Amino acid sequence: MWITYPGDFEIWLGNKFNNRRTERGAMFPPFWKQDSHYVTVEFSTTVNLEEAEEVEILCEGKFNLMLDGKLQFGMPEHFTVPAGEHKLNLKVWNQATPPALYIKGKTIVTDSSWLATYEDKIWIDENGIAHGSGIYVPAATSKYFQTKEQRPSEFALATEPLMPVSKERVGEGTLYDFGKETMGLLSVGNSKDKGLVEVYYGESREEALDKDYCETLDKFETKDFTPVILDSKAFRYVYVECAGGVEELDVYAFYEYLEQDMALGGAFECSDSELNRIWEVGAYTMDLTTREFMMDGIKRDRWTWSGDAIQSYLMNYYLRFDFECVKRTIRQLRGKDPVTAHINTIMDYTFYWFKSVLDYYEYTADTAFVREMWARMKTLMDYVLGRLDEEGLAEGQPDDWIFVDWVDFPMHKRGVMCFEQILLAKALETMKVCAELLGEEIDAEKYATLYKNVRLKTDEHFWNEDKKAYLHSIEDGQLNEMITKFPNMFAILFGYADGRRSKEIMENVMLNPDVEAITTPYMRFYELEALCQMGLHDYVMGEMKSYWGGMLKEGATSFWEKYVPTEQGTQHLQMYGRPYGKSLCHAWGASPVYLLGKYYLGIKPTKPGYQEWECRPHLGGLEWMKGRVPTPFGPISLEMNKEEITIQSPVIGGKLYVGDKCIDINTTEKIQVGLK
Amino acid sequence: MWITYPGDFEIWLGNKFNNRRTERGAMFPPFWKQDSHYVTVEFSTTVNLEEAEEVEILCEGKFNLMLDGKLQFGMPEHFTVPAGEHKLNLKVWNQATPPALYIKGKTIVTDSSWLATYEDKIWIDENGIAHGSGIYVPAATSKYFQTKEQRPSEFALATEPLMPVSKERVGEGTLYDFGKETMGLLSVGNSKDKGLVEVYYGESREEALDKDYCETLDKFETKDFTPVILDSKAFRYVYVECAGGVEELDVYAFYEYLEQDMALGGAFECSDSELNRIWEVGAYTMDLTTREFMMDGIKRDRWTWSGDAIQSYLMNYYLRFDFECVKRTIRQLRGKDPVTAHINTIMDYTFYWFKSVLDYYEYTADTAFVREMWARMKTLMDYVLGRLDEEGLAEGQPDDWIFVDWVDFPMHKRGVMCFEQILLAKALETMKVCAELLGEEIDAEKYATLYKNVRLKTDEHFWNEDKKAYLHSIEDGQLNEMITKFPNMFAILFGYADGRRSKEIMENVMLNPDVEAITTPYMRFYELEALCQMGLHDYVMGEMKSYWGGMLKEGATSFWEKYVPTEQGTQHLQMYGRPYGKSLCHAWGASPVYLLGKYYLGIKPTKPGYQEWECRPHLGGLEWMKGRVPTPFGPISLEMNKEEITIQSPVIGGKLYVGDKCIDINTTEKIQVGLK
Repeated sequence: MWITYPGDFEIWLGNKFNNRRTERGAMFPPFWKQDSHYVTVEFSTTVNLEEAEEVEILCEGKFNLMLDGKLQFGMPEHFTVPAGEHKLNLKVWNQATPPALYIKGKTIVTDSSWLATYEDKIWIDENGIAHGSGIYVPAATSKYFQTKEQRPSEFALATEPLMPVSKERVGEGTLYDFGKETMGLLSVGNSKDKGLVEVYYGESREEALDKDYCETLDKFETKDFTPVILDSKAFRYVYVECAGGVEELDVYAFYEYLEQDMALGGAFECSDSELNRIWEVGAYTMDLTTREFMMDGIKRDRWTWSGDAIQSYLMNYYLRFDFECVKRTIRQLRGKDPVTAHINTIMDYTFYWFKSVLDYYEYTADTAFVREMWARMKTLMDYVLGRLDEEGLAEGQPDDWIFVDWVDFPMHKRGVMCFEQILLAKALETMKVCAELLGEEIDAEKYATLYKNVRLKTDEHFWNEDKKAYLHSIEDGQLNEMITKFPNMFAILFGYADGRRSKEIMENVMLNPDVEAITTPYMRFYELEALCQMGLHDYVMGEMKSYWGGMLKEGATSFWEKYVPTEQGTQHLQMYGRPYGKSLCHAWGASPVYLLGKYYLGIKPTKPGYQEWECRPHLGGLEWMKGRVPTPFGPISLEMNKEEITIQSPVIGGKLYVGDKCIDINTTEKIQVGLK
Repeated sequence: MWITYPGDFEIWLGNKFNNRRTERGAMFPPFWKQDSHYVTVEFSTTVNLEEAEEVEILCEGKFNLMLDGKLQFGMPEHFTVPAGEHKLNLKVWNQATPPALYIKGKTIVTDSSWLATYEDKIWIDENGIAHGSGIYVPAATSKYFQTKEQRPSEFALATEPLMPVSKERVGEGTLYDFGKETMGLLSVGNSKDKGLVEVYYGESREEALDKDYCETLDKFETKDFTPVILDSKAFRYVYVECAGGVEELDVYAFYEYLEQDMALGGAFECSDSELNRIWEVGAYTMDLTTREFMMDGIKRDRWTWSGDAIQSYLMNYYLRFDFECVKRTIRQLRGKDPVTAHINTIMDYTFYWFKSVLDYYEYTADTAFVREMWARMKTLMDYVLGRLDEEGLAEGQPDDWIFVDWVDFPMHKRGVMCFEQILLAKALETMKVCAELLGEEIDAEKYATLYKNVRLKTDEHFWNEDKKAYLHSIEDGQLNEMITKFPNMFAILFGYADGRRSKEIMENVMLNPDVEAITTPYMRFYELEALCQMGLHDYVMGEMKSYWGGMLKEGATSFWEKYVPTEQGTQHLQMYGRPYGKSLCHAWGASPVYLLGKYYLGIKPTKPGYQEWECRPHLGGLEWMKGRVPTPFGPISLEMNKEEITIQSPVIGGKLYVGDKCIDINTTEKIQVGLK
């Protein structure tokens, strides 16, 4: 297989990915630092051969080969390693794409047992003696780079042709409807005349027909009769005009997607057809936004955003369990040192990034990944710590974006905000847990102390015993006593509010109609999870049906960036002061996929990677439900109706909780449990 | 002109440059981290136009264009900016080569008044309002990128054909002699048969003919009758064999060089023809090693090395005054954050790097460059400070290479070495002076304190009043009382030894035959400068003639990496345990160019950039001498014999010291001063 320096493929691919966004025909790169792969990497191994062995060498980059410290001539495509113990070192230089190496012989193959370094620090003195030492890490591999044809620099998503379901003459052009939200490369061909072709994309019919305000468009001159294949875009509708006046252009798309093994993925079906549709549309929304990386939305921004991504990861653990894509996204978001800004420039997004590593570990038990990320976790945390105030709390600096959520009510995002401290505490808790996991005792102690301090100060400053709620912030030394759901629901979610306090928050905040409602699926994700955690499954079921069902009633074929039920018609398309600014396929819109798997099928790991797990199923008012939750061992299947539960798991060590009963799952055979 | 992000062109070109080294046909990259350019850079300006203006836009990379915050369609080659005040922002993405932009209209041109950032941190809230701010720096320009054809990614040295002066049939092949050391691209053509062509390069005849041990070689299959042009190499001799058995190949070279304006450069001629030849060969050695960057040697390593480069800079101030090449090399050596190792992994080389910035400023008064480097000076010094011991002194860590010099006598390079503390002091002094220059008062105070501490501790620990010398080191708490010239001569050079102590060092160390001799031109540079500083011009003249004259007598056509006068024949070619390991064209071999300009013509700035300067000429035993020393204002010319001195300077503010007289140079006319 091909090997690269860990994280470098992601950083390089991330630049392609994030720079692919366009806005009305203009390239639209991110506004934060983009890093690069290490341009010169050394890969090395030691082999012990019974007989001499010829290996084939493929390389992305110029390279050299050293056998037992002696440089060999040129860049050989084949090389014979003699019998016995030998050291192989190959140095690869590639400025444009990540240095990558593929070696294959009878026994010698490049894999993660090889070491990689970007700085071997080996110097030779005047007597020809080598000195020095670099930092070596296991080389990175990927399921996508197994064969010699699968060159890392040529990584691409799968495509398949996708025809419009209808077309319609409108004005001077033709409107094509692909039947549902999709993402792909449009093919425009068979122009009988030469001339300017204009393509206007729309997630809605209105957008595609609004040439002046649609968010994405393409223009090109047809030069001959070869079909032109355009860069990937998000659309349901495409409106095409051709200056040549040609009536009929041959327009179709190549649907572009990340291949998944559906048989290993999650599933959900139940007695409520609207809920089934919600799950399906949620899954489709996730499949559209799970690509090279997990992106926010397919029309806009098409970037990796840490706060969006952590929800995608969690949904993914209940949908495709594509941990490669999770790792790719975590690596890409982190980038490289030096840290010059918060992730995506947003302070909360940095804190979510830490938690995403812990979440990943809890679902996969992949210690190697935590070890890979540890150095960059520490330097990112150094950046965070370097910006804390005297009390050790996080306050936004002039360069920091404090996001929290898109809110429709007045809410200050300055000073020391309770919401940010709770996320900071989780980030520090993550550092403590990961340090313990890696046996970094001094670090574990350091982060534990910092974590406890933030917990303590947060309670001291923001918990109000009269209002029985966490208050909003301290601004210029003054308490801002506003109450929002944001800090309160995270206090429940992270277990930072104890049982009594959680109940008080439920009454005074979460279920209090005087507290401002959340209008993005982004924060509804956490809101509804907190309610599920507090046992309000029936209530959340109703919320899911009214909120996500509400989008379906508006004709959604994928879930949106924001949904305000009281809005009407094209109001639903607006955002950022632009008539079609809102993304209609936004990953954070898909949370029912997560909620249904974790809180209705009720399955989650209780030890990392499902070494132990539990199932606490809830019908939430449904007649019956059945589904699957993926694990590293394969999916756990569950069927439940009011009479009985049937569960089958490829991994033992589970506990099924039914009422006040707990049943140990000690078999991979099907288990039936009566409920009466 | 083209604009780029400051330092990025150098980092990118440096990777090409440093990875071009080969050893017997194998690529040989450095063993330290290679950085990359920022792949996405935003360039911006504000214009105020009386009338609308069309501009031409050329770009290396994909780009977008924003007018007054509004993105424009596509990547326009021409764009009309309306009359009035407007803000132009262009974001350029290029992974393979540095993002570069060229805009030209009637009044609008890209130049250093444009701003550049790699992270604009400008985000847009839900209402479409832009927030945030990045760090902006003046865009980089270069004399090489003035016209639209001069694309930064296509930067190349000049070439001209160079014919061998003789050829000779040897064994199965032909030996070509180019008459002197040179560097260029060999052209091999007109093969009558197809087959394998083998090319062996030699700085010496012996090397070219030693197919098994010559340091560089090329092998290729001729496919047709087109001449093959090989990658640049260093050679005087080339031995070519052709498996096709062809008697006569058409072999010549393209001499490759950095163009210089010789009329503005330094010159030296005198009554001693051997000294004239020393100056000429020194100048040629410098011209061969002054290229994209200042390299150590043209055969090996062909890399930028900080300790070598600082001498090249100093020689260059007396030869070509190519401050662009100095800046390129300083930027390239520094690379980017994070600092993961000393420059070239060598602790002394990090310290020299700091001093090189101060030297550059003293010769050019280019505050803008100091400002450009300041952030990276600080982070590099943070790295240094983070590795100091409890006393604030520098001791080599396991990863650090302590170079000092190639020495032939036993010398420990461990513990707290006096030599390294003196260089550290100079580095801290540089930080203090640059902080003052930039008005960074807090930093200036901080570095002044650190500097004084190192000076104090160095004197306390290492100055020995009995031996009247600085001792070698403290190893494991024990004083190593060895005496070498290294720390002692730097104490004189940097003015850290006062007048009395300097004299003591001269007697007890520098002129003491029991102290081990220096055998590299590298440290002879500083040794002879210290002797000049102490007024021993006649003695140094003798040393120059015997040492550099000695190399000439051995047939040198450029100066060597190392010269031990007692060695014989092919011993002179050996180093690093390899028969031709020694570089016969090594920049640090050219120091007479510097010494003759600074201490015999005697000219140097006394205020930065020759705002004030002095001339203290010394014949050093010569009958007469004449020459030129370049300055930012053009060269100062001097002629001197035993009767009179004639001096002419394009800049006033000089002081000519003759005997005990001091004459103010207050005219740009020629001045004659009698010596009797």
